[in-house]
Formats: sequence, C-alpha cells, structure tokens
Amino acid sequence: MTTPFSLASLLRTGLPAPAARYAGFPAFNFVGGHNDPGSTPVDGLLEAITTVMRREGRTLATYGLESGPQGYLPLRDFLVSKLKRDADVSCTSDEILITSGSLQGIDLVNALLVGPGDTVIIEQDCYGGSITRLQRLGAKIIGIPLDGDGMRMDALAETLDDLKSRGITPKYIYAIPTIQNPTATIMPLERRRQLLALAMTHGVPIFEDECYSDLIFEGGRPPALMALARTEGWGGVIHIGSFSKSIAPALRVGYLVADWDILARILPLKTDAGSGALEQMVLAEYCNRHFESHVASLNATLRAKRDALVDALHEHFGTAAEFEVPPGGIFLWMTLPASVDTSRLYTVAAAAGIAINPGVEWSVDAGHGRRRLRLCFANPPIDVIRAGVAALAEVCHREMGVPERIGNVQQR
Amino acid sequence: MTTPFSLASLLRTGLPAPAARYAGFPAFNFVGGHNDPGSTPVDGLLEAITTVMRREGRTLATYGLESGPQGYLPLRDFLVSKLKRDADVSCTSDEILITSGSLQGIDLVNALLVGPGDTVIIEQDCYGGSITRLQRLGAKIIGIPLDGDGMRMDALAETLDDLKSRGITPKYIYAIPTIQNPTATIMPLERRRQLLALAMTHGVPIFEDECYSDLIFEGGRPPALMALARTEGWGGVIHIGSFSKSIAPALRVGYLVADWDILARILPLKTDAGSGALEQMVLAEYCNRHFESHVASLNATLRAKRDALVDALHEHFGTAAEFEVPPGGIFLWMTLPASVDTSRLYTVAAAAGIAINPGVEWSVDAGHGRRRLRLCFANPPIDVIRAGVAALAEVCHREMGVPERIGNVQQR
Repeated sequence: MTTPFSLASLLRTGLPAPAARYAGFPAFNFVGGHNDPGSTPVDGLLEAITTVMRREGRTLATYGLESGPQGYLPLRDFLVSKLKRDADVSCTSDEILITSGSLQGIDLVNALLVGPGDTVIIEQDCYGGSITRLQRLGAKIIGIPLDGDGMRMDALAETLDDLKSRGITPKYIYAIPTIQNPTATIMPLERRRQLLALAMTHGVPIFEDECYSDLIFEGGRPPALMALARTEGWGGVIHIGSFSKSIAPALRVGYLVADWDILARILPLKTDAGSGALEQMVLAEYCNRHFESHVASLNATLRAKRDALVDALHEHFGTAAEFEVPPGGIFLWMTLPASVDTSRLYTVAAAAGIAINPGVEWSVDAGHGRRRLRLCFANPPIDVIRAGVAALAEVCHREMGVPERIGNVQQR
Repeated sequence: MTTPFSLASLLRTGLPAPAARYAGFPAFNFVGGHNDPGSTPVDGLLEAITTVMRREGRTLATYGLESGPQGYLPLRDFLVSKLKRDADVSCTSDEILITSGSLQGIDLVNALLVGPGDTVIIEQDCYGGSITRLQRLGAKIIGIPLDGDGMRMDALAETLDDLKSRGITPKYIYAIPTIQNPTATIMPLERRRQLLALAMTHGVPIFEDECYSDLIFEGGRPPALMALARTEGWGGVIHIGSFSKSIAPALRVGYLVADWDILARILPLKTDAGSGALEQMVLAEYCNRHFESHVASLNATLRAKRDALVDALHEHFGTAAEFEVPPGGIFLWMTLPASVDTSRLYTVAAAAGIAINPGVEWSVDAGHGRRRLRLCFANPPIDVIRAGVAALAEVCHREMGVPERIGNVQQR
C-alpha cells in the first residue's frame, strides 16, 4: 500500500510563496543588479584565468585551495591594498573573509547577531534584500529617514536615545554610506564622523555595506566608516563589499572585513566548504593588474546610461518625476505624484514587459515608499532605456493619468 | 564618551565555538573531501573556459546568466543526460537546481522541511556535516544501523512502524546509497527497492545524497532511488549530487533534482542570487566532452591510492585494523580494538601532524563510533599515505598499545 506523501504537511512553517517558472527577462528590465554586458572584461578575465590555471590549477583538488577557510589569499591581499587605496581602511588579509557575493556577508552577520525580536536600525529606504532577510528573521526593524546626505543624524540620535531609555541595545546600525541603495547618495565625511560618534557613544556596531562604492561618476569617495573607526581604535564596524558591481555579478564574489574576534565567530557559520575558487583565482589575477582601469572605463559607460535615463525621464515624465541625479551606481530613485501607487504601477508595467522595483519593497515605511520606485540602468542598452522609459510613461499615463502629457521622441 | 561595544552580549545564543586561525594542512592529511591534485583536468578545464568565455563571457554581467535562478541551462542539460546514463533517472532541466556544492542542497532541503523538534531518519554512521547540520537545527535524529549492503531494512521498518504508532511522520529518510559515507558500501538494487517500498508505504520522503556515486572502482552503480521512485510514479525523492568528487571540490558546484512542486518551494529559499557562474559554464563545456573519460582516469588513480592505503593498514596495523575494502570513493572506515578511543587518537595524532576523522563525529551512536575512524585517501600522494599510516600506527601503539607490534617497511 502506498501512502502518498503530503508535501504541504511536511513543510516548515513560514516558508515564502512557491516560485513561478522562469520566463526570461522582460523586454525593459529596470530591476536587479545586472551590469553592462559590453563592459564585462572578457579578454582580461580569460588572460587572467589562463595564467592562474597554468600556475596553480591543480590546487582546485583542495577545498579552500591552499588558503584556508577565509578564501584565496592573493585575492585577500589584493583587497588589503584596494581597501587602503579606495576606502582608507587599514586591515590585514587575516581580517578578510571572501564570501559568495556580499549577500552571503549579510546572511553571516545576521546569523551572528540577529534573532527573532532583536532590534536593528537601518536606513528607511534600503536594499530590499536586506529588508526581507531581516523580516524573515523576525527582527524589529527601525528605519532612519534619509536626506541628500544619507541617514539623518538627528533621527538616529533620537532613536538611539529612545532605545537606550527602554533598555534596548540594537544589534547593529546597517548603513550603505556610499551610493546608498536606493537613493544613491554619498554620505559626506562629516556625517560619517557623526554616525561613528553616535555608534561609539551607544556601543552599537555599525554594519557597513559598501557594495556600490566603486561606481562613483562625480565627486570623491570618502573614507569608509571602518576606516574612521579603526583610526579611533574602535572595533565595532563590520564592512562588506563586492566584485559584483565592479567586475561581474554572476561571479558571486564578495568580502567581509572585521576584527579577528568577530571574524572568528563568523567563520564557523560559513558552512559551505568555501566559496567558488575559480572565481576567486581569476579575480585576484585580473584585479591586481586591471581593476582601476576597468572601473574607470565601466564608470564612463554607466554614466552615459545614467544620462540617457535622466534625459528620458525628463522627456517623458517631465515634472511628474522628481529625483536627484545619482552621482554613481546603477539605479535611480524616483518620486511620482501622490496619486500614483507604484505597487500598482509595478503590476501594470509588468504586463507591458517593463520591470521596476516598487518603492514599498525598497523602504520600511510603506507610506513613504508608495509613490516611489527604483529604476536600474546598467543592463539595458541606451536605446532600450529610452524606449523603456517611454513605455513606462505611456502605461503610467494610461492607468494613472501621470504624466498628464506624454513626451514623444519622434516629434522633438 | 565611548561605550565599548560588547560582542559577547550581542551574539545570538547557541553559536558554535570561535574558529582558530588557519594553520595550513597537516603533514598527513586523512580528512576532508579533497581530491587527487594531479587528476585535476587543468588543460581540459582551461580549454573549456576559453571556449565558453569567448562565446558568452558577456553574460557574466547578468545574475543567473540567461538561464534564470535554477542555474546555467547547458549544465542542467548535461545533467539530464548524465543522470539518465549513470543513475537511470529520467528528469528534465526544469527539475534540476544547480547549487553551491551539494552542501547547499542539504541546507536547502533542511530549510524546506526540518525545524526544531522534527524527526529525521538517517544512516547510523553518516556524513559528519549532515549530522551537525541536523543537530544545529534541533532535529531529533534517529540512526538506522548499517550492514555491508547499507541501511538495514529490518531496523528501518521497525523504526517507521514505531514512529507511526506514536503519530510521528519523519521529515525524511536521508540515505547515501552509493558509496555510503563513511562505510563506502553500495546498496544493492533489491535493497533499494525495499527502501523505496517502505518510504512509499509510510509516505515519508527520501533524501538521496549521491555525491560519491561517480567514484566506483569495482562493481556497477545501481539505479538511483529517484530512478526507481519515478518508475513507480512516486514524487517523494529529493536527489542531490556534486561535481566536487568527480571534477574538483574547490569549484563548489552541486545539484538538486526534485519534482517541480518541491523545487518551487526550494527556489525561494536559495537567496544567494545564483551560484558561481564561471564554474557552471566551465563544467558544462568540459563535462559534455570529457566527463566519462576523466572519471575513468580519476578512478584508476584513486583505486591505486586505496590499494596503497589498504596495504599500509595491513602492514602497520595487522589484525588490529578491521575494515571492508571500499569499492570506490575516497575514504575507508576502520574499526580498532575496543581499547582504543578514536577521539583520543584524533588528539594525539594531530599533535604528530596526522589528521583523521574520529568515529564519534561520523556516527549518531557514540558507543558505536568510539573505536572507529575514517581515513580519506584521495589527496595525499601514495608515499605520504604509506608514511602517514606508519606514523598513525606508531602514535596509536605508543599511546594505546594498539597495534601490539609495529610493522616495519625496512624489515619486510
């Protein structure tokens, strides 16, 4: 006799909804951290992998190559110099953990610190993947409002004081100080100092996510919060970064930097027997010689795409679209008139082959996110960006009366 | 005023102990799934990656390449034909998920099914990583004793009946039917049918881990449990496998096969934005042309290492070491006299530069595991295997009086 097994009765409680079958990318894909395909340094990566495979391909027979559980040592060595040069962070290779994308870094820090009911402080508008992770963990999320310089320090100070008065120590302050996701702001040095001072005063760690910080088109990159903290001799910053935005997202290579006493607690939580070695090897070999020149070239391309997006938004949405021109990164955060619900726009746009991030998925304040949306511009060609914005304006106009008039490329 | 943050007070409860700093591999390394370095197909992998990078390197700019969240489609297509040829499994590429090693497959299945207090059935002697994962999840683990043909069906039937009488449905029966870890047995076809029949009768899913099944030196590979289940039209088997043992462990590429209704629930739990793409691409390109010939050559090398280990054990431990000669794989499961505690042996051997897996880490029955140990033989060169066994016998003799006399190569 066969007892048909009942999948539903065996499942853990609280699982996410089932996945739909993959149907390919939409025609106008303004979501996801995809990069510019033509900027993938194919020749350079191939040259690097040829060199490194000939030199040490046999070490692929060994978990962790010969570098141990923290990742390929030459890549960590590259990061030591890169972090010093670009972010003013002084660290050693022993303080770096190579991760499978910076997402794994987020998972590891959460596994270290965040359990159900724990309080965390994040930016009010924030990377959707960080928000959903914290929600799944059952954390109490407090969002700090942003302005053009990033997290507002008056609001952060008030929140920390309030929590302290209630005897609550938040597990961390999560910040994306350089090219904040989704607002694309760069927190100035002085505010970084204020943020660090507040964290130090309250004894709350800072979880610094710098995954977009290589992509700056205008203006400089201030020192990382970790750099400032180390100058003060304070070990309370955990810093993560990624090669997804600077080289290629499909490689899935990120990194985490922390004092050894923190890293020693994180390492046993990384139970994946190492991140992909080939990708670590090729990145170490490639980046040592080409990182800076590649990123300069990539940024020129991304800036042109950003300009195309900004032009198209002005043309097709006119004054209906409010936004700051992002000084770097791969996305633009836009506000539409109060009559627009971008979650509904998301649905009607999807039916027209246009993918956008509705604001409620990128903000912990639903009312604030309701009329906002995120548009990613790195992946589509410039003509597709233009056509996609036109198509989005068309849908938005048809369904919500915004913008009131539709721009028309042909008539200009 | 600075409040020094207190890491200890912020940590989640129940974390594993801190990691020690990496100190390199020991001189005699008989642990870990490392493979034979000289068998790494460096030239073939390099040729494959050159081809695939020239053809589609630009797609690295896209998460998931152009294959969606289940992994690189050409690799899934290869697996469809490989699984049919080697394991008699009929499946489609839509039923396959590429994972970051088969370890991620284990994590995903556990995340789908196993919560605190849930009951799972595993083989009494079992992969240590599977045991520790289940322990961390707070599962109730029931170990089924093994004989020379794998899991004992009388004991399994009794356990299932007992659980049923208490109203408990176990979340799965975890089995490594082909080159069981650590005993290296191959479950014969008839017992596979019995296992499937019991699972079907009780409506309990089978979690089939076939990560060593390509490495068979003598005898054939019976159809996978999933193959038999699909012939019966029963969808209760989740099957995982790996390229770690057949090609290279550091690549971190495995796979999971399941009916779509199960896979649709697993996919949203894979929140890593894809497994490493370069490794998937190179494997697809390489394996389509070279998998079978490479594995044949690798198995010849591993068999020679196994023979060297067996000879060395006979020579240095004599009758003190009881074991079955493994018909494949990369490890040997050995029983020493009752006076030996292999956990103590582990400690004294480590001090002598010899790494072994003590039996208690590879068994859910501590009493059973106490005098047993696992020796991995794929990674060390043959002369190191010989010297390492001699050194282990020396330590064991000195500390525990076993073996009573020490073999001596020079005197033979």
